[in-house]
Amino acid sequence: MSVATQRMNPSGVVTITTDLGNKGPFLATMKGVILKHFPQARMIDLTHDTFVHWPAEAGFWLERSFRYFPCGTVHLAVVDPGGTGETEAIAVVREGHAFLGPDNGLLAGVVGEAGDSTVYRVDVAQRSSQVVSSFPGRDLLAPLAADLASGRVSPHELGPVTTEVIPSVLPEPDGDAKHVKGTILAIDPFGNLISNIGRQLVERFECPAISAGGRTFALRRSYAAIPPGDYAALINSFDTLEIARSQQSAAEGLGLGRGAPVVVSEKPR
Amino acid sequence: MSVATQRMNPSGVVTITTDLGNKGPFLATMKGVILKHFPQARMIDLTHDTFVHWPAEAGFWLERSFRYFPCGTVHLAVVDPGGTGETEAIAVVREGHAFLGPDNGLLAGVVGEAGDSTVYRVDVAQRSSQVVSSFPGRDLLAPLAADLASGRVSPHELGPVTTEVIPSVLPEPDGDAKHVKGTILAIDPFGNLISNIGRQLVERFECPAISAGGRTFALRRSYAAIPPGDYAALINSFDTLEIARSQQSAAEGLGLGRGAPVVVSEKPR
Amino acid sequence: MSVATQRMNPSGVVTITTDLGNKGPFLATMKGVILKHFPQARMIDLTHDTFVHWPAEAGFWLERSFRYFPCGTVHLAVVDPGGTGETEAIAVVREGHAFLGPDNGLLAGVVGEAGDSTVYRVDVAQRSSQVVSSFPGRDLLAPLAADLASGRVSPHELGPVTTEVIPSVLPEPDGDAKHVKGTILAIDPFGNLISNIGRQLVERFECPAISAGGRTFALRRSYAAIPPGDYAALINSFDTLEIARSQQSAAEGLGLGRGAPVVVSEKPR
Repeated sequence: MSVATQRMNPSGVVTITTDLGNKGPFLATMKGVILKHFPQARMIDLTHDTFVHWPAEAGFWLERSFRYFPCGTVHLAVVDPGGTGETEAIAVVREGHAFLGPDNGLLAGVVGEAGDSTVYRVDVAQRSSQVVSSFPGRDLLAPLAADLASGRVSPHELGPVTTEVIPSVLPEPDGDAKHVKGTILAIDPFGNLISNIGRQLVERFECPAISAGGRTFALRRSYAAIPPGDYAALINSFDTLEIARSQQSAAEGLGLGRGAPVVVSEKPR
Repeated sequence: MSVATQRMNPSGVVTITTDLGNKGPFLATMKGVILKHFPQARMIDLTHDTFVHWPAEAGFWLERSFRYFPCGTVHLAVVDPGGTGETEAIAVVREGHAFLGPDNGLLAGVVGEAGDSTVYRVDVAQRSSQVVSSFPGRDLLAPLAADLASGRVSPHELGPVTTEVIPSVLPEPDGDAKHVKGTILAIDPFGNLISNIGRQLVERFECPAISAGGRTFALRRSYAAIPPGDYAALINSFDTLEIARSQQSAAEGLGLGRGAPVVVSEKPR
Repeated sequence: MSVATQRMNPSGVVTITTDLGNKGPFLATMKGVILKHFPQARMIDLTHDTFVHWPAEAGFWLERSFRYFPCGTVHLAVVDPGGTGETEAIAVVREGHAFLGPDNGLLAGVVGEAGDSTVYRVDVAQRSSQVVSSFPGRDLLAPLAADLASGRVSPHELGPVTTEVIPSVLPEPDGDAKHVKGTILAIDPFGNLISNIGRQLVERFECPAISAGGRTFALRRSYAAIPPGDYAALINSFDTLEIARSQQSAAEGLGLGRGAPVVVSEKPR
């Protein structure tokens, strides 16, 4: 197997993704540690309000968002599924970006298919004398993110290349010629139900019908095209399928939430 | 009509105001795009917890807050009233600050009266090849904010001067010699009910009495001057009239919220 | 009395701690004022979701968090207990960090014991012509924080050294050879109940038993060591005692919250 090595030229930008909420000193001390190790770091909160102990949502947003940041950004992501004890860490390089997080499925989306990325297994024992911590995001990964973002350390210095990473707890959407099945992963501030079904999977169908929660929705081109009070499906600004309601919350109206299945199929004539 | 052209000398600071919540990748990708176009941008969240689809609250805070930022700040504001389809964008220059947002009433407060500001209608077709987006705040306005904040583009290069902008959905407080009528626009973290009635309108009265929700409140000089458990009106730190309760939430105690009318009149003797 | 003078060499980093929530223009205008006075400031939100009008929680987090920031950081903290009227301000220098806040007990934890820190009483009249403000965090303290962070003003220039500061409303945990009594001060995003009892106080006991809400908990070494569904006590990543539940919220499960007493004692044999 040949693994093309991807390169990363640090921009000094660090994004942070966790399930800690935008609330307090947990996140703040991660940032403090990054500034201690790299005072010029420019840090952006990617999201911290993902469902706790569920790496699938955080991983989805990271994979859908990273290209909006400058090339050379270091994306630090920490979501612990809970109850697992020690976890190994990996660094991923893809399209000029670097990602750092636990090997628990969180980064599976950015790892992608063979050839999309280069993955390094972080040699924790070598990188840190402080291996016992109940907050590895702050005590182990934040200093490493600072090392990468400052350019002092290159991803390949973190450990050996690996092609074996733990997959996401949630399967990628898939299907056959007749249907595609995916999952609601997030609810946006307006109550829109965001699925992990990308645009390409929807465009397979000539006239797609979208089913969720026992109802079927037509695909509309924009929010403005939804008649007042009605529901519809559309491709959102992160290029995935969502179910929306005109000026109201689809999540509340339908009683659907994270984890709900969504199916796309050809509309019967 | 003569429109005095206002000038703006960029400071590199960008504030962001939305109704997206401080929660996730929507806001984060706006920031990523700004950093992509202007790596030195220093971004400050003005507020993202304004009432969704209600530009009036966001516009109020922007108008009341912008002078606390350095001259040369670019203020990017995006609140979509919902269901409207395409909206034009405007850039406003006032007192050395620049504002960028949709022409939907959101910026009406910073546009102010004739002569307060200079307004440019953004020539969207010229500025962007990517005119179709369900997230214009990120895909159209964020790159423009970066262009303005970096000094690469001056406001007058964005499009022609205009004096016709869409007014706020909410009328400015007004009245006659005997009373002034305004509206509760926001609730602060302590439950104080913040109105859009500025200090000057209150100072018209020798001994003002403030009415809201069927009750009348005396005007006090400070929170400390309110007897424990009592309600009172006072001029807050943003120089507008508010209704407060000593150490408790006036919003909860009175059952009042955004949109409630407030009237100031002369106290009967 | 001899007071060892502590020194502070500014790093340009400013942390901000309030009870204002991460929500709006109150916090944003504090940041705007800091940038106006010191454009190179790098500002980090320490926490804003502390219990309102309760300086004890904010002070606890500050004392537990400050060492994670670079030496020379200025920590601005504002929590008003409510209803008190004017408050004096103090500046504290400890271990190369500076702290600025009201003299209302908020900074008692970072002041510490005699010799831990040097405290200056801020001469407000000299520092500010704008002494009347209902938002001193923005109008008085933010400019001072910028002065300190920029190095234009040294802490000792703010006013005379004092050794008399108002203590915290909450007593430090204490006890005798047989038990230590403390308090739940915060709930983390996972529902863990965080107390103010530091590691050293727990390590006094050979085999500690932790009591709260009428139940007794064993001390575990890590979250992973708690059997599924069970409760346990452990030393958290801020080095204090907490009560946790495996993969669930201990706060909800036990019905306990801020202010609840916690007792550590020797386990009976």
